[in-house]
Amino acid sequence: MPPLVLTASSVDLTRTICDIPSVSGDEAVLADLIDDAIAALPHLHVYRDGDTIVARTESDRPQRVVIAGHIDTVPINDNVPTRDVDVDGDAYIWGRGTVDMKAGVAVQLKLAAELVEPRIDITWMWYDHEEVDADLNGLTRLARSRPDLFAGDFAILGEPSNGTVEGGCNGNLRAVIRTTGVRAHSARAWVGENAIHKAAPVLARLADYRPREVEVDGLVYREGLNAVRVGGGVAGNVIPDLCEVEVNYRFAPSKSAVDAERHVRDVFAGFELDVIDVAVGARPGLDAPLAQQFVAAVGGEPRPKYGWTDVARFSAMGVPAVNYGPGDPHLAHHDQERVPIAQIEDVERGLRAWLS
Amino acid sequence: MPPLVLTASSVDLTRTICDIPSVSGDEAVLADLIDDAIAALPHLHVYRDGDTIVARTESDRPQRVVIAGHIDTVPINDNVPTRDVDVDGDAYIWGRGTVDMKAGVAVQLKLAAELVEPRIDITWMWYDHEEVDADLNGLTRLARSRPDLFAGDFAILGEPSNGTVEGGCNGNLRAVIRTTGVRAHSARAWVGENAIHKAAPVLARLADYRPREVEVDGLVYREGLNAVRVGGGVAGNVIPDLCEVEVNYRFAPSKSAVDAERHVRDVFAGFELDVIDVAVGARPGLDAPLAQQFVAAVGGEPRPKYGWTDVARFSAMGVPAVNYGPGDPHLAHHDQERVPIAQIEDVERGLRAWLS
Repeated sequence: MPPLVLTASSVDLTRTICDIPSVSGDEAVLADLIDDAIAALPHLHVYRDGDTIVARTESDRPQRVVIAGHIDTVPINDNVPTRDVDVDGDAYIWGRGTVDMKAGVAVQLKLAAELVEPRIDITWMWYDHEEVDADLNGLTRLARSRPDLFAGDFAILGEPSNGTVEGGCNGNLRAVIRTTGVRAHSARAWVGENAIHKAAPVLARLADYRPREVEVDGLVYREGLNAVRVGGGVAGNVIPDLCEVEVNYRFAPSKSAVDAERHVRDVFAGFELDVIDVAVGARPGLDAPLAQQFVAAVGGEPRPKYGWTDVARFSAMGVPAVNYGPGDPHLAHHDQERVPIAQIEDVERGLRAWLS
Repeated sequence: MPPLVLTASSVDLTRTICDIPSVSGDEAVLADLIDDAIAALPHLHVYRDGDTIVARTESDRPQRVVIAGHIDTVPINDNVPTRDVDVDGDAYIWGRGTVDMKAGVAVQLKLAAELVEPRIDITWMWYDHEEVDADLNGLTRLARSRPDLFAGDFAILGEPSNGTVEGGCNGNLRAVIRTTGVRAHSARAWVGENAIHKAAPVLARLADYRPREVEVDGLVYREGLNAVRVGGGVAGNVIPDLCEVEVNYRFAPSKSAVDAERHVRDVFAGFELDVIDVAVGARPGLDAPLAQQFVAAVGGEPRPKYGWTDVARFSAMGVPAVNYGPGDPHLAHHDQERVPIAQIEDVERGLRAWLS
């Protein structure tokens, strides 16, 4: 594998690193290449933990920004290697990882090499295992072993945001609602109790639910409460004794985990409900002075981020954080994942303008 | 394997044939033993098709009754060999097949040997594969190859009925109702359409459904409409695009397949619905003169049969049919399957009294 050339354009770097498969768990080849390329740069102090690489400028600036991107992707589905495509007259790089989020990582790698004397000290983080269980996430590991590396006045995650600033993120709660009954032969149903029939009000409440829009620090977050799974049944001639409805609640970053659980329990009052997991969101982080300078430098109107991202991790550690990267988040994980070349260049220009 | 001794008591014969495993598909050992024992009886004309054995008296009686019993069982679950148990002071034979329906078969085998000159000509049928797909059923096969053997004025299935006459049986329809939507990331649910939420009215209609009781030829059949399975969901963060609810409709024997399908389509009007299979029931068959004599001879008050049995097959071929056998149908297929010894003897006496 030839070494990464960080003086290449960020567009070429995007093609190169997308063509090196790095599905979660298999990031080592790409991490080694990044490590080798970054370790050769004398202005950066490098720390490695597994396949997570941290590179810091230490120029004694009064402020520090953390700029992070994950290097793993969801599984490839016949969409590697990348290719250049044209959609409605716009040039795209098509393939797994182009949106989520190797184009963002390519911009970061290029600027990490180029910005020898940035205006603000920078902690670059390229990390593994973002697309899988949070316990495996490289930042979870790093936060345990080296929490000091997260210190900063502001953080930028290169998650796809169509090249505009997306502030914070919604929280995410999953719960299972269970109804129970009594099994019986379906020829003598009156001997049993049908657990699936008892779930009727659960689905009715979901169907009737009107999600709120919640303004937080000037951005409006759309919430959502949805069934993501339903299951029940024993055999074609048996009255079922169990039905489960798994729901997913996406809640505004102004709500705590306790608030979110209380809301879901209110909606399904009278039913047995177990919360499986909950991750609070992140407030937009746009009131921080560095954030305001950043938004002014890159331009555009900040918007809310709906999906949960690692900005919440920084927010929870007291570091205001936003998402800013090339690519349409609707195309993340999509088999037709593709990033507009112009957005890669825009994001590169935006970050450079602010950091130089 | 020692030969079957048909001069033994029907209780001993029950123990013997229950201790010869004959789970559907593995009936050959038992079928061979029955064939050998029956072939030795000069008053019976024997025909064999696979593991189905037909034995006819040909005494030129003006009337003929078909008496049938299946020799297969559902899978054994640590409940063979049989043992004698006492429950609340009553003596039982415990084990797989005791109820469904080898005690009934034992009575039939004993009487087949004993009744050399019956009052009514008898066609005995012992058949395979009743507990599995109807296509495999020995009677399905026989009805294709030798429909003439089903000729008769009346039929008795030895299915468990607590030693009382259970007339006819309910019909059985299974259908799947599908709701569809549009997949989306659950962080942006408004981009999609939730198929599980759309199933809310399906479950509500099931929960609100009040099954009818339908009188047919003097017996009251309880109907039932139940969800037996529900399924939907793609992943914990995806708005599901498909939800399926499988329903099972048990309908009175006065209804045709068309009636039954129309009723289910009415209940779920507005939804996509596919009928998976339908088997019509059987009218009680108690208005036939032979049936009335039979009921008078064995005594007791006839009751409706709720579960579908092969009586429906005879009924469809124009032969009125009833269920009459030892054992509680609620214990069929049960791990604690057990038959009261007194019921075996009662059924033997009942049949003998009518046939002698």
